Amino acid sequence: MNVYDAIRTKRAIRHFAERPIPQETLLKILNAGRLAGSSKNFQPWHFVVIRDKTRLQTLSECGQWAGHLAGAAVGVALVTGDWRERWPVVFDLGRAAQNMMLTAHELGVGSVMANIYDMARAHALLQLPEDKMCYAAISFGYPADPAALQRPPRKGRKRALAEVVHWETW
Amino acid sequence: MNVYDAIRTKRAIRHFAERPIPQETLLKILNAGRLAGSSKNFQPWHFVVIRDKTRLQTLSECGQWAGHLAGAAVGVALVTGDWRERWPVVFDLGRAAQNMMLTAHELGVGSVMANIYDMARAHALLQLPEDKMCYAAISFGYPADPAALQRPPRKGRKRALAEVVHWETW
Repeated sequence: MNVYDAIRTKRAIRHFAERPIPQETLLKILNAGRLAGSSKNFQPWHFVVIRDKTRLQTLSECGQWAGHLAGAAVGVALVTGDWRERWPVVFDLGRAAQNMMLTAHELGVGSVMANIYDMARAHALLQLPEDKMCYAAISFGYPADPAALQRPPRKGRKRALAEVVHWETW
Repeated sequence: MNVYDAIRTKRAIRHFAERPIPQETLLKILNAGRLAGSSKNFQPWHFVVIRDKTRLQTLSECGQWAGHLAGAAVGVALVTGDWRERWPVVFDLGRAAQNMMLTAHELGVGSVMANIYDMARAHALLQLPEDKMCYAAISFGYPADPAALQRPPRKGRKRALAEVVHWETW
């Protein structure tokens, strides 16, 4: 799958099949995240990979729209230091997450993001060091409905290019 | 170019040829950014496209390591609201930036990020509304050295997977 087609056809997948993700596929997805560029090559990310159903259930309760994590084959918690000190950390985390989700899509694996609201509970659940935080997590899994990966985009979901792009100045 | 190969072979390109980027190529890169997923489908991004050499020069002076913007064929300034209110905005901006840079790479166009430190100067330069900020910009252009796009990664530049990935808990 070429890059632009992957971007164009990527959908948020929230309902997953029971089928596990093979380890080789999972490692490729994680490597895609690891290989992202980052400000000053700081690579400020850690990925906590969760397959335990009880732990996924608890993590799914740490965000208001994170319920899909309970049904994921794999959850990947995105962990880094304190963003309030340095905004590029969170920007770079977004770059790594995008690499992982696009690679998953290429491999037929669906994914969707969840923001973590109850960071204290996620911190305890994942046994993070004092200076680390879990901001977000990604659900990965084969879609419950295999047709979901090819679903055409719903009309009107994205702002038009003319609303997004400005030429030379605002 | 498939997704994983694009991720694996993407290099930061800081020196650009004089050759302009065709409009069709540029629009594809911008669309790749526009099509990124975002928290609650908020699409919190604006892209200011800059080709004017004087404006690129001034923008290149708004960050400590942003000098490459002066030589870019196109600079894309990433603009959104105030990140201190809502960290996913910056995360989502990173997702859009990654989409643009991977698509550029697929199309033979090099790119590299610059963080904007002097946000007040960038704000004036780009004539942004009061409630918007420019956090970062991307330089795009064909590489001065065409071999640069195929350059193998320097050894030891990325942390090993075992340093990045944790299983079930930290």
